[in-house]
Amino acid sequence: MKRISRSEAAAHVRPAPVFVLVEPQMGENIGAAARAMLNFGVSGLRLVNPRDGWPNPKATAMASGAASVIDGAQVFSTLDAAIADCQFVVATTARMRELATPMLEPEAALKRVSEKIAMGDRVAILFGGERNGLSSDDVARADVILSVPTNPAFASINLAQAALLVAYEWARVRPFADEAAETAANRRPQDAPAARADVDRLYQHLETALDARGYFFPVEMRGVMTRNLRAAFVRAGFSESEVRTLHGVFKSLSRKGDEA
Amino acid sequence: MKRISRSEAAAHVRPAPVFVLVEPQMGENIGAAARAMLNFGVSGLRLVNPRDGWPNPKATAMASGAASVIDGAQVFSTLDAAIADCQFVVATTARMRELATPMLEPEAALKRVSEKIAMGDRVAILFGGERNGLSSDDVARADVILSVPTNPAFASINLAQAALLVAYEWARVRPFADEAAETAANRRPQDAPAARADVDRLYQHLETALDARGYFFPVEMRGVMTRNLRAAFVRAGFSESEVRTLHGVFKSLSRKGDEA
Repeated sequence: MKRISRSEAAAHVRPAPVFVLVEPQMGENIGAAARAMLNFGVSGLRLVNPRDGWPNPKATAMASGAASVIDGAQVFSTLDAAIADCQFVVATTARMRELATPMLEPEAALKRVSEKIAMGDRVAILFGGERNGLSSDDVARADVILSVPTNPAFASINLAQAALLVAYEWARVRPFADEAAETAANRRPQDAPAARADVDRLYQHLETALDARGYFFPVEMRGVMTRNLRAAFVRAGFSESEVRTLHGVFKSLSRKGDEA
Repeated sequence: MKRISRSEAAAHVRPAPVFVLVEPQMGENIGAAARAMLNFGVSGLRLVNPRDGWPNPKATAMASGAASVIDGAQVFSTLDAAIADCQFVVATTARMRELATPMLEPEAALKRVSEKIAMGDRVAILFGGERNGLSSDDVARADVILSVPTNPAFASINLAQAALLVAYEWARVRPFADEAAETAANRRPQDAPAARADVDRLYQHLETALDARGYFFPVEMRGVMTRNLRAAFVRAGFSESEVRTLHGVFKSLSRKGDEA
């Protein structure tokens, strides 16, 4: 897992969400997404398992003036690694899910993003690949779902279009004029929100403890049950100290795992 | 000049602006614009002098699920003909112009469009071709300029992206839930806004009269002077009866055209 250094972060024009493309397929679409991002002041790009490897000359060619976004892209082998250092995660998807994750329209979602960024949080916005979009397991990692209200009779938009609309909404809620605004990093409250990797470790701690107790039964329901549980954990928005406390709680509980 | 019949208009899902592509070049971009339109419930497409003629198989191929938009497209040889039956015209352009035409951000522009459509007006939104965008002469036809606030360091967006953002803003100000709303045509006030063809004839009447008086002097300034004058006329938003009145005024004035 590669973290963004302070100097890298400072090189960005201003704090902005990072866009995470999950298993994108065509280099052209990655390049077009990079252009759309930069059109609206977003330059942090992360890729999870790009199908055709990385770097990808087609992405660079399509990005043209936005080559800096492509050159700065970070590649990860899992979504969890890509969002490990983020405190707030948004999943973009058109479909309703079985999850209880709140669904927001773009403007409301980007207002939340803006609030989080103003507090010094790192925010990731997830986009699915061309074929299937985000999986339910991917969406379970998100604090909120961003859904673009398209024409029900002709709903599907492509990856670069989704990136364009989300970046556009970002620029709407955080206009370029605001630039001189806050020194975000200094505003972190004393008990900061936990980074995603910490929440993930906490959830894994719980899942392991529950497995030891045979909690996930019947076994064919395990996928749904873990997904819903993880989504609830993510949504809770635990702070760093709460995560520490809960590790203690689970540790304490799992010591009794051999009873009953 | 082809007018949309009542039955054609009724075939649209609901009243919406028409998108006018002025001298578009690549069929693929026309097709991509058609898709973007239909994603957000806009289906009326007009083309002014498409470079590669019409119909264009590349546009149809790219439009795929939005072929109905391509099939229903109307082709015109001049912009004036394309907007002749419209009462309100919006020009999309990133650049500032010498014109006094008011410049609005997308949301404000589409709110104006929505108000006009609610009153029964037909609204055109103009998009320039890939190479040069809209000319100053094109923009002089518009009541307002819609300008997308992009990153000053990387500002240019393509035709299909501009169509996507404008259609998206249209759906934002006029959500799909509003469908059953107003029977727009019945709401026209007694003294309805003049159609663009009527304003155009009125302006031509004036220009001819002014030419007869040698008003446009020096001659190399004629282009700027006529453009500004036309823009002022358009912006005035004359009603049908005002246009009739002003024809009388100009006729009366030009009878004296042979005096000093």
